[in-house]
Amino acid sequence: MPKREQVILERRCEGRPSADDFRYETAPMPSAGDGQVLIEVLYLSLDPYLRGKISGRHMSGGVAPGSVMAGETVGRVLESRSPDFAVDDLVHSFSGWCSHAAVAAAEVRRVRSYDLPVSLALGALGMPGLTAYAGIERLADVRENNTFLVSAASGPVGSVAAQLARLKGARTVGIVGSRQKADWITGPARFDAAINYREEDLQEGIKRTCPEGVDIYFDAVGGEVLDLACEQLALDARVVLYGVLAQYNAESRLPGPPPGLIIRARAHMHGLVVYDHEDLRPEMEERCSAWIKSGAIAYNEDVTEGLQHAGAAFARLMAGENFGKTLVRIA
Amino acid sequence: MPKREQVILERRCEGRPSADDFRYETAPMPSAGDGQVLIEVLYLSLDPYLRGKISGRHMSGGVAPGSVMAGETVGRVLESRSPDFAVDDLVHSFSGWCSHAAVAAAEVRRVRSYDLPVSLALGALGMPGLTAYAGIERLADVRENNTFLVSAASGPVGSVAAQLARLKGARTVGIVGSRQKADWITGPARFDAAINYREEDLQEGIKRTCPEGVDIYFDAVGGEVLDLACEQLALDARVVLYGVLAQYNAESRLPGPPPGLIIRARAHMHGLVVYDHEDLRPEMEERCSAWIKSGAIAYNEDVTEGLQHAGAAFARLMAGENFGKTLVRIA
Repeated sequence: MPKREQVILERRCEGRPSADDFRYETAPMPSAGDGQVLIEVLYLSLDPYLRGKISGRHMSGGVAPGSVMAGETVGRVLESRSPDFAVDDLVHSFSGWCSHAAVAAAEVRRVRSYDLPVSLALGALGMPGLTAYAGIERLADVRENNTFLVSAASGPVGSVAAQLARLKGARTVGIVGSRQKADWITGPARFDAAINYREEDLQEGIKRTCPEGVDIYFDAVGGEVLDLACEQLALDARVVLYGVLAQYNAESRLPGPPPGLIIRARAHMHGLVVYDHEDLRPEMEERCSAWIKSGAIAYNEDVTEGLQHAGAAFARLMAGENFGKTLVRIA
Repeated sequence: MPKREQVILERRCEGRPSADDFRYETAPMPSAGDGQVLIEVLYLSLDPYLRGKISGRHMSGGVAPGSVMAGETVGRVLESRSPDFAVDDLVHSFSGWCSHAAVAAAEVRRVRSYDLPVSLALGALGMPGLTAYAGIERLADVRENNTFLVSAASGPVGSVAAQLARLKGARTVGIVGSRQKADWITGPARFDAAINYREEDLQEGIKRTCPEGVDIYFDAVGGEVLDLACEQLALDARVVLYGVLAQYNAESRLPGPPPGLIIRARAHMHGLVVYDHEDLRPEMEERCSAWIKSGAIAYNEDVTEGLQHAGAAFARLMAGENFGKTLVRIA
């Protein structure tokens, strides 16, 4: 009798999560109820926002200790009791950390592969890609020769955002935490410059790479990184906020940059939540898949094999030790 | 032989300024040099941004101890050695805290009275009025039935901004520090509600008066007031930052609101510096003077008689004990 694999959240960890905050186990195989599909999960997406769910503080809801850990996946339909899906359809769902899941058809979305790896539906062509695309198209107001600075620059949001900005004529600078990441963003991803904050003082690095000021800052982090970027804003700068990585691990709410910095730069700071921009998804997928195929947008994946290692992979992600879009391959 | 009266900045005070940080004295009467006008000052404007100049930190430059204190004035031309001005012209200048000043014609601007008191050129029809007008017209994006919240609500910027927002169909709420101010904003200035933070917990007050959330927050203060307003932002809120009153007295840079609050509300935060919006001045003067005459916009002045009391009046302003646009009548 086949079993389903699943990972349980053991506790609301404080600070950085570790592998033993999660428990791997097997459980009876589910079957599709009326109006549901049974999904065989191919890839699980590990994303920083899940840290907020562990604390019970994320806007999309929390995860209770003892429950299957939440997360997005792409998978294949094994069994369908919905007229909207057929066996072998590729689908996206919020099935959580498991190998198989029975999910209501209304909560499942069909995935187009665009002749590219299906894992991209969790990265450059998924929620991270849509976050980047919406931020660039709707909030950042990228102009020719703008200096575009981004934190978490080798991640799936940051790297796509900067490459989209480059395609609009911006000079792009990325903040990263390793030499490997710096090499990737200035190599395949064609950023103009990298700041490795583990090898260079971040404030000095921002001044060195953005001597005329930062026209657009795209921020995943909050905390000190956001403060330092705001110190160097050019007049009329745009700041797009889409994450608070620094805060997830800090377990306390970090303040934002002094308002005087926003006033001095006559800056425009915008909060971005990807859920608001679903309407852009078809356009994003069409355009970004074409750019990926042509090589105009590079992407990078950090794939862990096997659900039993998902907790360790998530801990690495939250320590900034991942490199690229963090995924767990399951089937 | 007539003397000029003047006030000297004695020291870069820390925290709240007091009257004895300033020294009143007389000095020889100046005369107009080539290309200059000699101005008899009628009104001196006292504004919170002068606190930043005392610390030497304001974007328009500092004032060195031992110098005549900086400030805007309206006055009358006594003597002109410029073809651009005639005797008896009413003019605005940055003459500082003095009774008479010889100023280069290029730094003087003719004032139209619009059959209203000339002191308005320093308040509702001057820099404060232009700050309010630019913020409302260019950044706040006021929509019908929006809830508009403003700090320092009985001051010349806050009160004009809210009344302009009301004329665009917004519901207006003001934060003030006395019952007298609360009565004025909900009386003559026709705000819908007041929060007196000396009589009510500010967070409770914001929730009480803005139960559906704050669509627009117009901020003079920074610090905790900004944080609490951001806690209550409605979706798609706009935040206009034009001052950092809390910081002026704190003598240290206060942080801003946590970025998670901006993200959660999908808010748009804009820095406003009035100097960028000089092009709006003629339109602002025409429209606001008409609204003042018709009674659609109320204004309020806090006038101290005599330059020797300017320091004490400024100390009252920075303690929030003024009531209305703070002026010193000189001539």
